[in-house]
Amino acid sequence: MEKIKVTIGVDIGGTNTVYGFVDKNGKIIHSNSIPTYAEKEANQLFERLFEDINSSVKKIENEYEIVGIGIGAPNANYYKGTVEMPPNLNWGIVNVLELIKRYTPLPSAITNDANAAAIGEMIFGAAKGMKNFIVITLGTGLGSGIIVNGDLVYGDDGFAGEIGHTIVFPEGRECGCGRKGCLETYASATGIRRTVFELIGSTNIQSNLREKSFNELTSKDIADAANSGDQLAIYAFDYTAKILGLKLADSVAYLSPEAIILFGGLALAGNLILEPTKKYMEENLLNIFKNKVKILPSALPGADAAVLGSSALIWNELAKKKL
Amino acid sequence: MEKIKVTIGVDIGGTNTVYGFVDKNGKIIHSNSIPTYAEKEANQLFERLFEDINSSVKKIENEYEIVGIGIGAPNANYYKGTVEMPPNLNWGIVNVLELIKRYTPLPSAITNDANAAAIGEMIFGAAKGMKNFIVITLGTGLGSGIIVNGDLVYGDDGFAGEIGHTIVFPEGRECGCGRKGCLETYASATGIRRTVFELIGSTNIQSNLREKSFNELTSKDIADAANSGDQLAIYAFDYTAKILGLKLADSVAYLSPEAIILFGGLALAGNLILEPTKKYMEENLLNIFKNKVKILPSALPGADAAVLGSSALIWNELAKKKL
Repeated sequence: MEKIKVTIGVDIGGTNTVYGFVDKNGKIIHSNSIPTYAEKEANQLFERLFEDINSSVKKIENEYEIVGIGIGAPNANYYKGTVEMPPNLNWGIVNVLELIKRYTPLPSAITNDANAAAIGEMIFGAAKGMKNFIVITLGTGLGSGIIVNGDLVYGDDGFAGEIGHTIVFPEGRECGCGRKGCLETYASATGIRRTVFELIGSTNIQSNLREKSFNELTSKDIADAANSGDQLAIYAFDYTAKILGLKLADSVAYLSPEAIILFGGLALAGNLILEPTKKYMEENLLNIFKNKVKILPSALPGADAAVLGSSALIWNELAKKKL
Repeated sequence: MEKIKVTIGVDIGGTNTVYGFVDKNGKIIHSNSIPTYAEKEANQLFERLFEDINSSVKKIENEYEIVGIGIGAPNANYYKGTVEMPPNLNWGIVNVLELIKRYTPLPSAITNDANAAAIGEMIFGAAKGMKNFIVITLGTGLGSGIIVNGDLVYGDDGFAGEIGHTIVFPEGRECGCGRKGCLETYASATGIRRTVFELIGSTNIQSNLREKSFNELTSKDIADAANSGDQLAIYAFDYTAKILGLKLADSVAYLSPEAIILFGGLALAGNLILEPTKKYMEENLLNIFKNKVKILPSALPGADAAVLGSSALIWNELAKKKL
């Protein structure tokens, strides 16, 4: 009997590194997680990772053939195969694709988390069959992956798709990038927490969120409060959506996508964020674009989304090479 | 002797329609201009146009073979072959590619002026050899053509590339599109005239520009004044560049282009606009993009740029089909 082809999807995070064997339909055959040890150098991770992968391969190799490995990592450069100065890993600049040749002869590719999410949505998720769309990841920051004519937009240097660092207010909130007023300081899980704290300072609206410190408060707390009718939390979602919708109208002017897919922690708030974002985007769209562009939630299962995205990256590469 | 292949580049304007026979190297063998008669229906233009083209063809057909026709027109849709509600032509919606089949069996393509300019720069101009760049046309409005991976970005519906209608100030200047604060209300030949008039109102800076009415004043007048040391004109260029530079930093965050090429009336002001735009863009760029992206003037000869762009459009289509 012919073996079923699977790829390995790897997601490198600041705390854990997760991998899974994924078939062409996005079914995860097996997955596992190991600690990343962010303070150590890159090679110690890959040594432990491939030890773990190899022992897992033994369990499935009678039935499955592994055909490639896709990696999602912070600050990854698809063209160069590198990870460059990731904020949450003590790696400096590492050529990951070179490094893993010590451990595997498989075809490999690497990209950043948001780009992997975009390819994941195209191959397995909400963007199946779409050729032009944008994925916005609303996590600690705001990441984005742009697909044009069925291909990811990497730009001249591999770093395209930084919609989170387009500027909303030139003298606005301080951003981790060293500038001010970037979109991600407003529209992200961190951004909505900042908005809640500004509202606590600037208004007298009663709210249970006044009981929490900034470091305690999560975007899920804000969503829970909004769902219980907390006016300050509701106002915070509306303000977040207003700014995100305004800037997504710009995204449509650039790229005229079929859909914009919201992914990640803050997107889990569902219609608390999707509906007002759509409303404010429509209000700001050029006439020719009105009532055309869908705002959709991610269709990748939350816990497995990153592994599916990384797997989709290499499935997509393998498909291109067969053309 | 084998005939030299040429394409026909056609540029449809509100006043005149210009065409030229253009070889693979961008040499114009012959060109001519006829009045458009914007108030009449589309077909009357194409009837006269092809009459004129056919009589020109007779003069060159011993030496040249015509292999295709490319058309640049306002509000053109590449996918559908249509021109839709052009502001300066009384056409409504016309399927131009269908219409011209009555007159020619040649392969044909149509796109808007800014997209034709972008393909023109790629094939004949400042972007030769580039795969990722943006052309910004600074005329009556601000048009843009975006090239990613060597292809023009049309988006899902054919209308991508409306950078002129990204929003700078949500409560800013009234735009012809019915919204407020669009980039083109600041950064365009019209935009800088508006800036001059706001400065005349808001400051006491002495200036010869105070002698002119708004309808008399051209962007060339402002450039001439700035070159003679007129402080108000110099201030107007600086303000225009400040806003354009800020928004081009957003463009880089989206697309990470190798270059941004400035084209059209206001770009003829040269370093009055290029240098400060570059300065303000750099000030607003995310660190990873600093000192990477060129700001270049168009390298298409002004008077022939539109014909060369339309010709490049069809040369590019013919090249793609041979792959």
